[in-house]
Amino acid sequence: MIFSNLILNKDEPIYLQLEKHIKQGIKNGELKKDSKLPSTREVSKFLSISRNSVISAYEELESMGIIITRKGVGSFILIEGKNESYEYNINYSKIINDYGSTLKKFDIVKNELPYKKGIISFKSISPESHLFNLDDFKRSLLDAWTFEGTNLLNYGYAKGYKPLIDYFFDYMAEKRVNTENKDILITNGFTEAFDIIISSLTNKGDIILCEEPTHNTALKIMKSYGLQIVQVKMDKEGLDLKSLENALSKYSPKFGYLIPSYNNPTGIVTKTERRREIYKLFRKYSVPIIEDGFNEELLYSSSPIDPIASLCGGGNGVIYIGSLSKILFPGLRIGWIFADKNLIDVLESVKRGKNIHTSFLDQSAFYYYLKSGAFSRYVKNVRKYYRDKYNLVVDLVEKYIPYEYITGEGGLHVFIKLKNKINSRKLLELCYSDNVLFMPGDIFYENYHLESSIINGDDTFRIGFGRVSDEDIRKGIKIIGKNIKILEESS
Amino acid sequence: MIFSNLILNKDEPIYLQLEKHIKQGIKNGELKKDSKLPSTREVSKFLSISRNSVISAYEELESMGIIITRKGVGSFILIEGKNESYEYNINYSKIINDYGSTLKKFDIVKNELPYKKGIISFKSISPESHLFNLDDFKRSLLDAWTFEGTNLLNYGYAKGYKPLIDYFFDYMAEKRVNTENKDILITNGFTEAFDIIISSLTNKGDIILCEEPTHNTALKIMKSYGLQIVQVKMDKEGLDLKSLENALSKYSPKFGYLIPSYNNPTGIVTKTERRREIYKLFRKYSVPIIEDGFNEELLYSSSPIDPIASLCGGGNGVIYIGSLSKILFPGLRIGWIFADKNLIDVLESVKRGKNIHTSFLDQSAFYYYLKSGAFSRYVKNVRKYYRDKYNLVVDLVEKYIPYEYITGEGGLHVFIKLKNKINSRKLLELCYSDNVLFMPGDIFYENYHLESSIINGDDTFRIGFGRVSDEDIRKGIKIIGKNIKILEESS
Repeated sequence: MIFSNLILNKDEPIYLQLEKHIKQGIKNGELKKDSKLPSTREVSKFLSISRNSVISAYEELESMGIIITRKGVGSFILIEGKNESYEYNINYSKIINDYGSTLKKFDIVKNELPYKKGIISFKSISPESHLFNLDDFKRSLLDAWTFEGTNLLNYGYAKGYKPLIDYFFDYMAEKRVNTENKDILITNGFTEAFDIIISSLTNKGDIILCEEPTHNTALKIMKSYGLQIVQVKMDKEGLDLKSLENALSKYSPKFGYLIPSYNNPTGIVTKTERRREIYKLFRKYSVPIIEDGFNEELLYSSSPIDPIASLCGGGNGVIYIGSLSKILFPGLRIGWIFADKNLIDVLESVKRGKNIHTSFLDQSAFYYYLKSGAFSRYVKNVRKYYRDKYNLVVDLVEKYIPYEYITGEGGLHVFIKLKNKINSRKLLELCYSDNVLFMPGDIFYENYHLESSIINGDDTFRIGFGRVSDEDIRKGIKIIGKNIKILEESS
Repeated sequence: MIFSNLILNKDEPIYLQLEKHIKQGIKNGELKKDSKLPSTREVSKFLSISRNSVISAYEELESMGIIITRKGVGSFILIEGKNESYEYNINYSKIINDYGSTLKKFDIVKNELPYKKGIISFKSISPESHLFNLDDFKRSLLDAWTFEGTNLLNYGYAKGYKPLIDYFFDYMAEKRVNTENKDILITNGFTEAFDIIISSLTNKGDIILCEEPTHNTALKIMKSYGLQIVQVKMDKEGLDLKSLENALSKYSPKFGYLIPSYNNPTGIVTKTERRREIYKLFRKYSVPIIEDGFNEELLYSSSPIDPIASLCGGGNGVIYIGSLSKILFPGLRIGWIFADKNLIDVLESVKRGKNIHTSFLDQSAFYYYLKSGAFSRYVKNVRKYYRDKYNLVVDLVEKYIPYEYITGEGGLHVFIKLKNKINSRKLLELCYSDNVLFMPGDIFYENYHLESSIINGDDTFRIGFGRVSDEDIRKGIKIIGKNIKILEESS
């Protein structure tokens, strides 16, 4: 009998298990087309289960057209077991276009050394999950469910969930940004926001100015669209103004991409005066700025600095990308673009063409979370936690690592340029065999992966400490220091 | 005093309201830099609130660097009120590239007649929200939360949530698809799946074959990437084989895009024998197929037909796009690509470049929902509901609408070609002023929006009935019939 080899488990409804078993039997040829199934009574007796479960299973199979039940006669299989198949094969690697192959080539998850068990990893700049205030979030999730219900499950609006859009408007206004003639589009995090802007507003060969070094994901996306990237050097206050003006006049770039609030990877916070000067230069050359408000909320020490977007008044020169999710729930993938109203109107259509809209369940839960004040409480708590870790890291680096400079204040990572041109990839190789991992700095430079004799940033690296225990920070940085000595001695 | 004009509400925590009020005061110039705030004691007395709330607000403002509290002296404002601003304006409409402007131009939400209150709308093919089994979903959401917790809130994997991937593997295997050397990528619904494939595997000018008519979103995406679209005519069994072979040999297309399970808009289900013949032709010309498994689950009548992907055995000629969300929770935006393992490896990097990954909260909740058997129960219930509506629609169309043909079985819409070349846009105009809305058929044809003298599909339209009450179906179709008469008489 078909059910002799069925072992029921306790996790799944019984009728579903029966259904699957029969489908499986058809598939592997045990149950042929037109063959008769045992009666529901027989099955229930044989397996010692309720007859109703068997009836449910049969009914469902019938409604799917897999079996047919004839009153007084029995139930019969309606469909064929095996499909004939006629293979053919395509060599997709020859079809992948430049866009796809560039994203593959610059995918650091695939190309950089992976995390392995027991390793001390400074590679990630994710927040520490155990600090998430989960009860608050669960409450917000249930609030969203209670207040919105089915609205969250049917199609929503491409622009986003209205209360969340309004919340981000207030958020921008609090940062003293003029919201007149502006609009907001909700996106799946920073990455999608940047992708939407770049894919809609640039053409192959366009030149983009950005900081040196800068966010590797932004570099990757720009390269995937065939853009030319010009990096402008920074000092500890932000972009170097002379270099910036040179680049603006020499290259007539399409856009500037800036992370004034907290440069990734250096953690440099561009100071208020410098922001103004940078803004004025872009204005002088009529070049729009894409401002990345990365980790703005987390600054431990300095007073909050208004974004560059606050300088343009009723003008539309700045396109601002916001994201709270990098310090809070990156898994939810929520960010936003704040920009000229008519521009957002087009980007909204682009969003609709890419994936219709961002999950309304997530947007609504996130909204109730922010509205409840839980976000402010969270930031307040974690600020102290990360500040302590930051101080620990800096102390240890001072002690063990001979650096030319170390930068970073108020985030989840610091950036180090080594003395004596020590190569950070060679250093990483040694550290990896000692079970220590960090992010080599060259990935934040435009010439990463190019066939070039001079590789910028090859004596730099980033230490992300958000998810590393104090003990591991101590151990890990000592190991890095030890391996630098080895490299110094061997050179 | 700064708090004289503050009216507290009950919805928000008091300390947050205080905080906002002070920030607002700074912003509008009421509170100048270096001015002193009233003491926490004074404020608590003045507003009759607990002193702790005031202390919390002040502490938070201090941690943000907005005020400073000196022991025994008082709290002082640290920052300037107004920003100077220097406007500049960019004409973004001149910068928007072909991709962005095409997506805007073909955005039917913006360009077609909108829903208005009180209207009978046959425009949408969304499912009826009140049929969603909300308690089941809430339970799944809580299950996901309980079993996964913080895992859902930190960064996940670009490929997707592992248990859901495994679930979809089983799902494909049940449809007798060979899963060897295949892999799955989770996407934000069909739209993103198609966008990922098209953006990575085609170049401007490439030719894609598809059915005539076909899904307008797919047409829009292909046009946005500058592809050439060749539509092949269908009969009631699916693609016309002679036309298909002609097109394959004449155009050497890059891909075929097919919706054999339930063509949108016609609702034509390609029968098993025809599927085999279609597949063999693509195989003969070594052209890969992108198979859209649209609404496969909902077929009311016929037995389930295996997807074309089941025909290719261990070969990789078919890229299958799955999505359950069109009949269930479209708001969640979950779909998948099932294809050659090495191809998925590249598409995974593309997904990471577009938005890192799909929400893990949604994926996990969806997984627990599917696993519990709730999805099968849901489909079983709604099938009868939609079948009854379908029968009602067909009866009424027979009675009131002079058609050349009507197609559709087992979905949420039917498609009608009118007799006597009645123009469906003119018909829509009349119906709209009678408060009836439907989707004109020309948007499903390649030449929609092109400057062409012959517009295909201009005598067709789609009636979506999923969310329309029986009473409104009766009223609405009568009104359409009445207006067809008016057009016939006037011509």
